[in-house]
Amino acid sequence: MTRTRFQLGLDELKQKLLRMAGLTEQSVDRAIEAYRGRDVATCQLVFESEKTINMVEREIDELALELLAMQQPMATDLRFILAVIKINGDLERVGDQAVNIAQRVLDIMESPGTELPLDLPRMASHSASMIRQALEAFIYADADLAEKVLVMDDDVDRMNHEVEEAMRKKMAEEPRSARQALDALLIARNLERVADHATNIAEDVIFWVRGADVRHHQQLGS
Amino acid sequence: MTRTRFQLGLDELKQKLLRMAGLTEQSVDRAIEAYRGRDVATCQLVFESEKTINMVEREIDELALELLAMQQPMATDLRFILAVIKINGDLERVGDQAVNIAQRVLDIMESPGTELPLDLPRMASHSASMIRQALEAFIYADADLAEKVLVMDDDVDRMNHEVEEAMRKKMAEEPRSARQALDALLIARNLERVADHATNIAEDVIFWVRGADVRHHQQLGS
Repeated sequence: MTRTRFQLGLDELKQKLLRMAGLTEQSVDRAIEAYRGRDVATCQLVFESEKTINMVEREIDELALELLAMQQPMATDLRFILAVIKINGDLERVGDQAVNIAQRVLDIMESPGTELPLDLPRMASHSASMIRQALEAFIYADADLAEKVLVMDDDVDRMNHEVEEAMRKKMAEEPRSARQALDALLIARNLERVADHATNIAEDVIFWVRGADVRHHQQLGS
Repeated sequence: MTRTRFQLGLDELKQKLLRMAGLTEQSVDRAIEAYRGRDVATCQLVFESEKTINMVEREIDELALELLAMQQPMATDLRFILAVIKINGDLERVGDQAVNIAQRVLDIMESPGTELPLDLPRMASHSASMIRQALEAFIYADADLAEKVLVMDDDVDRMNHEVEEAMRKKMAEEPRSARQALDALLIARNLERVADHATNIAEDVIFWVRGADVRHHQQLGS
């Protein structure tokens, strides 16, 4: 067993994780596209890609285990592999959020259309861009970039809070739109969780790159 | 380095994980106690124990890394350590749910008391018992017990669904209770996530014990 073969394994692990990230990001994009277009077919795409996401998650875990068993990894490789395992788990849950959103969209479609004062696509694109930047920080081992992701989480928390207040108001003033307003509020919470996962990923990147633990320096969203 | 020393490390890892589980379970219990009693002091206890939980989470990860670096672990030890790392992450998030509930309780206390047709303590005790059983399955390496936890998740999903319907109805019929009904609905979702984490833990136990991956055989809650 050569170091080179181990190194190739690490590269493969990184590639697989990037594929996983791409899949989950696409899933969130599609879920929001389904929301905008009230589109069942796009919801179905989200449900289907969940299977692929779960399969890739498992492949990554198996490869990580293989690499750990392959040879005595150095401390830095260990931290890298541990980071991959954790990021992998977070990405899979991002995929779950997309599924939850798509389910919610199906529920929304049973109610008549209504104008709601909120911009979920903007919140979605902010959350997705956090995932992208967290992964970029991972690829380039860039702890500073990862720290920027931590800061972005505050924006999403604020947006989520605004949506909650606006939807509460809508429910109170216009009971016939209550169901839709609640669905929109719950979708916003799913997006806020996507941003939380991006934050977790960024923290894992910093943990790996700096060998220090910065987890939990942020406040929780509600 | 002897096998025995490694074995002692594994035992310590297990003990720490049990401590972690006890802390997070206590936190959920307290959050629900705070909800029942509308009690600020108990909310504070939840916020404080979050720090301890985060500290123990980090200790567990560090010990896991040390053990991985210590000697060439056997495949079964590797799977055990990987399971611990994953369970640890889920338990930390159970603690986060308790914090979210306590924050919600503080919000509830700003509104006048109202009677809501729901039994959150029952849902909480069901979710907590799933966590307990998943950990018991872990201690005794009992995959059959872990499978029972997977089944229990359906009950919690059903309870969550019932709460959502009941609270939607309440909001529609009694707008002045809308804020409280929404808070209760969101607490139910937090409890449903506790149950999801218990499910993840049970799946990790089965993965470790049987060496097979049963993740994702369950449907997602919404």
